[in-house]
Amino acid sequence: MSVASRLLVDVHTHVYLPRYAALLRARASVPFIRTTTTPDGLSEDRLLILDHEPSGGRPVGPQYWDREEKLKFMDKHGIDISIVSTANPWLDFLPASQAHTLASELNNDLEQYCSTSPPVTSHKIKRLYGFGLLPLVPEITTSALLDVVHQIGSLPHLRGLIMGTRGIGKGLDDEALDPVWAAIEKAGLVVFLHPHYGVDGSAWGDKDNGHVLPLALGFPFETTTAATRMILSGVFDKFPNLRLLLAHSGGVLPALSSRLASCIDHDPIVVSRLKQDARYYLGKLYLDAVAYGPEELGFVSDVVSRAEGFQSGSATRSTLNRSVGSRRMLFGTDHPFFPPLSSSEKWKSVSVNLEALADVQGWSEADKDGVRGGNAISLFNLEN
Amino acid sequence: MSVASRLLVDVHTHVYLPRYAALLRARASVPFIRTTTTPDGLSEDRLLILDHEPSGGRPVGPQYWDREEKLKFMDKHGIDISIVSTANPWLDFLPASQAHTLASELNNDLEQYCSTSPPVTSHKIKRLYGFGLLPLVPEITTSALLDVVHQIGSLPHLRGLIMGTRGIGKGLDDEALDPVWAAIEKAGLVVFLHPHYGVDGSAWGDKDNGHVLPLALGFPFETTTAATRMILSGVFDKFPNLRLLLAHSGGVLPALSSRLASCIDHDPIVVSRLKQDARYYLGKLYLDAVAYGPEELGFVSDVVSRAEGFQSGSATRSTLNRSVGSRRMLFGTDHPFFPPLSSSEKWKSVSVNLEALADVQGWSEADKDGVRGGNAISLFNLEN
Repeated sequence: MSVASRLLVDVHTHVYLPRYAALLRARASVPFIRTTTTPDGLSEDRLLILDHEPSGGRPVGPQYWDREEKLKFMDKHGIDISIVSTANPWLDFLPASQAHTLASELNNDLEQYCSTSPPVTSHKIKRLYGFGLLPLVPEITTSALLDVVHQIGSLPHLRGLIMGTRGIGKGLDDEALDPVWAAIEKAGLVVFLHPHYGVDGSAWGDKDNGHVLPLALGFPFETTTAATRMILSGVFDKFPNLRLLLAHSGGVLPALSSRLASCIDHDPIVVSRLKQDARYYLGKLYLDAVAYGPEELGFVSDVVSRAEGFQSGSATRSTLNRSVGSRRMLFGTDHPFFPPLSSSEKWKSVSVNLEALADVQGWSEADKDGVRGGNAISLFNLEN
Repeated sequence: MSVASRLLVDVHTHVYLPRYAALLRARASVPFIRTTTTPDGLSEDRLLILDHEPSGGRPVGPQYWDREEKLKFMDKHGIDISIVSTANPWLDFLPASQAHTLASELNNDLEQYCSTSPPVTSHKIKRLYGFGLLPLVPEITTSALLDVVHQIGSLPHLRGLIMGTRGIGKGLDDEALDPVWAAIEKAGLVVFLHPHYGVDGSAWGDKDNGHVLPLALGFPFETTTAATRMILSGVFDKFPNLRLLLAHSGGVLPALSSRLASCIDHDPIVVSRLKQDARYYLGKLYLDAVAYGPEELGFVSDVVSRAEGFQSGSATRSTLNRSVGSRRMLFGTDHPFFPPLSSSEKWKSVSVNLEALADVQGWSEADKDGVRGGNAISLFNLEN
């Protein structure tokens, strides 16, 4: 085992690069950053990213854009390496030409952000790597998308790309994306699939529950729907080597995969179309370990572990070994979101996830080291 | 242990009583039953219950309304007792006065349906019990709702009531329902919370995936949202003895309860309002065992088992014992939905759930007998 496999690597950590933050400041409609005055007469920046943002948006500060703040956060929590990604809503709201230009610029910015970061002590590995951005908006051309995939693939510190669930307007089950999946697969880039839109807000009712319902439920519902639609449209059959990392431990796809398989089994429209039991595809995924509890993480590793047994023509299911699934799970923090409400030494959103993975029953110490960092070192090929 | 605790009891099984089916036949807009002619020239009834029903609605036949068909299904699958409930969308679409009248009539019909059913061999227990209906529609009066709660409580074979998620129009976190919860709690009736509306259909995209997405994902999302809103509005604090049975193993509330607790912890609007960690309330729930996999059932029992450890002021979490959670889980089939696509001896939707509960790691044989029937005997007080 290499020394690097004992590092702590955060695969779910966001940045609003200065160029992106400046764009948001220059806007007057969602998404935008506005400067307001607090009741105490202090100036405060607030970020509004949803059409009906609860609580007048969320306070934002240097931790959203300043690299020193990211490194300080990492130091405080013992995080050796972060694979940073632009936060939602990425470029979704821009016209195609602007999205294309900005994607290229932001990818170069992120490469510089990472390439000039310090190395991990006694390693050649840098402390920062990145997920680039694609201009996934309506009316973008396929060639523009392929250009940017190639750009990301050529930037040595970008090891993947982050994307939302809308594709170029019709979702990720749109065949128009097939050439893009093919190029991503060929470049060996990891796709980090992340929610933004949740579900229609009328589901949340009239009560003021702040951000709780859209974040706790809407986000996982959105990720789950997008990944399920990809399964149903055959993306994983067509691109078997596509490496897809799902935010928030796959939303609730792990919890619903058997129900999904049963519904498919009972639906004459769909059952004849799919090559595999839906549960098989969960073994093709990577999932962050942002699930806040050891039972959750253990269960997610179970459904990944059992996936192979659902391959067409496979023999009866073998005894479940959670270790297998742990190898596709990767520690994350969701920084700089979920800051502590009161000052504290460490962020609870981080410590809860670290404690959760330490407490999973049935994971060996090697499995836990894998989830903490070893799996990321390997998935993102960080030793090369 | 009583002999009755070895019975197989189905708590999730639906009926369209003849009076209800006649109402649907008389209608020309959703929900309704229409008679069509198949390509072979045969007459076929199809049920349309959603505004954008895929596949032209689903075929329906005597298994939806004929009691003999229910008993035959039970015999074929070794089910001793069924707690039957009217299927969605219940009375949601009716004006208040009609909903009130029909609720009372259907509750009497269901009492007769159950009370005249044969006894379980060598027991005094009948083979059929029921969940009544409330006229939960906009503009209904509280006194009308209380009247019907009292009616259900007075009908000896009705042991609970089924409801959707809309309440009287504003959801189940509406304080206008407080007198209703109080009356249900006092009557000792079990509330079976069941989805119908899913989420806004635009989430499913343009592809024809039949009923898969609304059923596999939309249903659990809806149940989860409704139960979460009840937690956030304090229903379980105000009515600590309310007995709520969630369809489909609680949707994805078990999978999201730690994320929910974390989002609450980080939201200044909500955190000060709640009396308990969100995960505590999962220990107050009952959940059907309609989850189609042993890993799913085991995980659900884990989150119920750990709930007590999240009570305010409780000491550190004790070692997890899945058995505890199994006692709040109850076998169900979802009959007559999910019929096999081709003729088969037994319905796969039934055998999969029976096999799943037999295969849960960490459940003793007594735990499994409890989930198969013993828990239902006790929850519905069937020996009295």
